[in-house]
Amino acid sequence: MPYVNIKVTKEGVTAEQKSELIVGVTALLKKVLNKNPATTVVVIDEVETDNWGIAGEQVTLHRKRGE
Amino acid sequence: MPYVNIKVTKEGVTAEQKSELIVGVTALLKKVLNKNPATTVVVIDEVETDNWGIAGEQVTLHRKRGE
Amino acid sequence: MPYVNIKVTKEGVTAEQKSELIVGVTALLKKVLNKNPATTVVVIDEVETDNWGIAGEQVTLHRKRGE
Amino acid sequence: MPYVNIKVTKEGVTAEQKSELIVGVTALLKKVLNKNPATTVVVIDEVETDNWGIAGEQVTLHRKRGE
Amino acid sequence: MPYVNIKVTKEGVTAEQKSELIVGVTALLKKVLNKNPATTVVVIDEVETDNWGIAGEQVTLHRKRGE
Amino acid sequence: MPYVNIKVTKEGVTAEQKSELIVGVTALLKKVLNKNPATTVVVIDEVETDNWGIAGEQVTLHRKRGE
Repeated sequence: MPYVNIKVTKEGVTAEQKSELIVGVTALLKKVLNKNPATTVVVIDEVETDNWGIAGEQVTLHRKRGE
Repeated sequence: MPYVNIKVTKEGVTAEQKSELIVGVTALLKKVLNKNPATTVVVIDEVETDNWGIAGEQVTLHRKRGE
Repeated sequence: MPYVNIKVTKEGVTAEQKSELIVGVTALLKKVLNKNPATTVVVIDEVETDNWGIAGEQVTLHRKRGE
Repeated sequence: MPYVNIKVTKEGVTAEQKSELIVGVTALLKKVLNKNPATTVVVIDEVETDNWGIAGEQVTLHRKRGE
Repeated sequence: MPYVNIKVTKEGVTAEQKSELIVGVTALLKKVLNKNPATTVVVIDEVETDNWGIAGEQVTLHRKRGE
Repeated sequence: MPYVNIKVTKEGVTAEQKSELIVGVTALLKKVLNKNPATTVVVIDEVETDNWGIAGEQVTLHRKRGE
């Protein structure tokens, strides 16, 4: 029954990578808390780099500096 | 003053259906908890089927199998 | 498969009222979008009135004025 | 280490305005709670006006009436 | 820089189990998307069983029936 | 109409500090985006340090080392 929300910047995450995240998180919740995979929900949000701030700065600017 | 967030898969939800969800949730909170509709906020997120996992699998794959 | 999060202030919501919210939201998603109730998840967060702001003010203060 | 999520309607918010929100929120958390800006995360969600309800109505309709 | 929110029912999750979830999710994001563990944030919410609904019913009732 | 959610660790945040966050965020949204304070909602979540992970580690452990 767990609900997991993963937020990452929108920078070319592939359908295969999203699947790996879903598989991995669902397995982790089974292993650690014995949660039923059948009702484990995972939602991935991809956020534009202009809309994500870290250290008071947009990720867009971090990327421009090569970070 | 309630805040409600509804997440559904992005599969052709119409503006009219969104309006029905907003009207329905606002009325429910008035009926059950006597919350003031004027300050009830409802936000609907539509999530790509690749980004939604259930039972360790992307909804995209569920749909391909006709589920 | 929908996920719904309802946030209200923590002011004596009973177990029965929570049940009514869960039943009502689940039925609404079935009616409007034909979503399967079996996999509809509803999570209710009760938030202390000190932690909820509206109009730049804590709800605690609204309540003291009888609003 | 704080995490802040700002949801606003998608109505032409510029990259500069997003930056101002990120700078402002990060500074506020430093000032009020002495939180380290280096690990303060801000995520801005822009929500379509059809998907945002207030007072039981879509923001799209509010805007049409000039509100 | 990812942000992950894990919601589970409040049913005796130990500090060690929470640590395993944090370690596991952080490693998964490193493995799948090469995300820097140093800035990966994980927040675990434990939700009372009265406040979690599935299939239109509180988890409290599921548990009473032994599910 | 904006909705802002602030998550910080539960480490003795006072009612006055919460008020300052609410006042500050509401003013910021007025200044940057001309949002109406009357309908700006701010919700503060205080999260136990065992439930917050950064760099693959619980904040509880960071604090024990004096960080």
